[in-house]
Amino acid sequence: MRIDGRPMRAIWARADGTVGIIDQTRLPWGVETPALASLEDAARAIEVMQVRGAPLIGVTGAFGLALGLREDASDGALAAGLARLLGTRPTAVNLAWALERVRAGVAPLAPGERAAAALGIAEALAEEDVTACRAIGEHGARLIAAVAARAGGRRINILTHCNAGWLATVDWGTALAPIYMAREQGVDLHVWVDETRPRNQGAALTAFELGQEGVPHTIVVDNAGGHLMQHGQVDLCIVGADRITRLGDVANKIGTYLKALAAADNGVPFHVAAPSSTIDWRLADGVAQIPIEERSPREVTHLAGQRVAAPGSAAANYAFDVTPARLISGFITERGLCQAGAGGLASLFPEAAAA
Amino acid sequence: MRIDGRPMRAIWARADGTVGIIDQTRLPWGVETPALASLEDAARAIEVMQVRGAPLIGVTGAFGLALGLREDASDGALAAGLARLLGTRPTAVNLAWALERVRAGVAPLAPGERAAAALGIAEALAEEDVTACRAIGEHGARLIAAVAARAGGRRINILTHCNAGWLATVDWGTALAPIYMAREQGVDLHVWVDETRPRNQGAALTAFELGQEGVPHTIVVDNAGGHLMQHGQVDLCIVGADRITRLGDVANKIGTYLKALAAADNGVPFHVAAPSSTIDWRLADGVAQIPIEERSPREVTHLAGQRVAAPGSAAANYAFDVTPARLISGFITERGLCQAGAGGLASLFPEAAAA
Repeated sequence: MRIDGRPMRAIWARADGTVGIIDQTRLPWGVETPALASLEDAARAIEVMQVRGAPLIGVTGAFGLALGLREDASDGALAAGLARLLGTRPTAVNLAWALERVRAGVAPLAPGERAAAALGIAEALAEEDVTACRAIGEHGARLIAAVAARAGGRRINILTHCNAGWLATVDWGTALAPIYMAREQGVDLHVWVDETRPRNQGAALTAFELGQEGVPHTIVVDNAGGHLMQHGQVDLCIVGADRITRLGDVANKIGTYLKALAAADNGVPFHVAAPSSTIDWRLADGVAQIPIEERSPREVTHLAGQRVAAPGSAAANYAFDVTPARLISGFITERGLCQAGAGGLASLFPEAAAA
Repeated sequence: MRIDGRPMRAIWARADGTVGIIDQTRLPWGVETPALASLEDAARAIEVMQVRGAPLIGVTGAFGLALGLREDASDGALAAGLARLLGTRPTAVNLAWALERVRAGVAPLAPGERAAAALGIAEALAEEDVTACRAIGEHGARLIAAVAARAGGRRINILTHCNAGWLATVDWGTALAPIYMAREQGVDLHVWVDETRPRNQGAALTAFELGQEGVPHTIVVDNAGGHLMQHGQVDLCIVGADRITRLGDVANKIGTYLKALAAADNGVPFHVAAPSSTIDWRLADGVAQIPIEERSPREVTHLAGQRVAAPGSAAANYAFDVTPARLISGFITERGLCQAGAGGLASLFPEAAAA
């Protein structure tokens, strides 16, 4: 997608062998594109959330492993690099998935061949992600068009939580890809953007993305979605995901569950858009089984370096919650739409479900 | 309650004829106590939220009308003063209720007697509010003790949204009064404090109050309550109210509805604490009938004067939402506990329900 009219991706291999990213902790105020030159650079970029979003974390991890193997391609370095990258963030399963793709591809090779092979796999993963997100956009745009048709031509309102746009992937995004494509196809729509405390990825990143693409949108606090739905101001919710169990429970940014409850209470369709790399086929019960990252309390108590909470008061900072499949109307994947719940995802990805 | 160990109320008549308040836009950073010297001072204090909270808004309005009548006690000035104060904030019904109490008391009097009578009524309303909140605390403390008994002696966790503490009333508070009293009675408890965007009354005021009284508490973002409830970390929710319909629908700070949905989904009791001055007996359907204030988008896009949202993006700022009675376990009023829904409130306040 575009920044200041210029096409960009969220991560790319640079001619000098380093990896370019957009420093998302600086958006929307500045567009800085630091270069990752080592595995440690990539690990830190994930930890401090210069890059974030489940698909983008996965691709960044793959590039990071490739950078590490360029310096030391031994079995020991491969194992240590995998452990370092896997330990950066626990909830999004795309990271483990992407790292395993690289590991499986390079482990059988002689050390001297590993770095180049890893870079090739990372680049392939990036391209696959773009392809998957474009497909998610196409499938999701049909869903949006159907909602618009039922609305009889008036402008429809879509609510999204956090940022599941192109900045959370390599390009296009997951939840936002259908919105971008529906708009290109002439659907008249407006997006309610949850600001997404504590890190404000909605107000800072989703609003920025939508603004750059000229998509009408309005920022609201995370508290507002239920009120909007009670008053008929939301026709459809679309969110991304960080991990999906085989039964369709969805870990996503903290607060997603509350919006899904409100959608169910008001008969508003609630869809989750994600590539199959976000599905953890080993897990069934999301609330019980998906690890939820706890981040620094300072993300809650401080904003832009300034304390906003009462002095002396402690804070807790759970980064994700789990929305049970029963609250989800359906999934939007690269292979199309499916119902949430047992059998839905497996019907689209039978080979993965059986593995 | 106390600030720095010193007993204080949230509003008081001063010896010089002005009215003292705590400037709540300065908390928790500074304790400033400006004097309201005119009706316009009082109206502005309500509008800019130097004072906020439904019961405190009502008492402030009453004092404001008394200040106005001191300058001009004519019928015209009384009507204009009522209109000015009523127009400050639309959702909390306590304001209209308190102003009507003053109007009904002074309208039959000769102009020369009105100012003193109005001041007397305002002071009586303040005392009634303290009495009501203390009673709410006593009734609610029994509820908390019962929850603690069921928990078998372990520390219990109570979640609250926004600030319904003593700073939202004259003293004691509504939702927090039971917590203060239960703690005095030796109940081992901990409070989850929703930060309450966009104005952060939880992080700034509730956390401050609880800290001053030594009540264990932890601030979380508004997105977190559902996750906490899914994981058994909330034994009870208690919130305040800005307007309650006769059938038990509750307007309260935006986001209350989302927490009530999560409580219902997880079997967590969800109680609303309010004095009877918060009940609007004329209304039945809260979602359809309670006016919801829209405040400046700047409260969403800016924090401490600094823009936190993407440049150029618009914001909407609905200040309240409505929680349907079906999601409320019960009310805590100055006359005791009752079920939500038809008949509950009327059983405690039959004379008002019949009026």
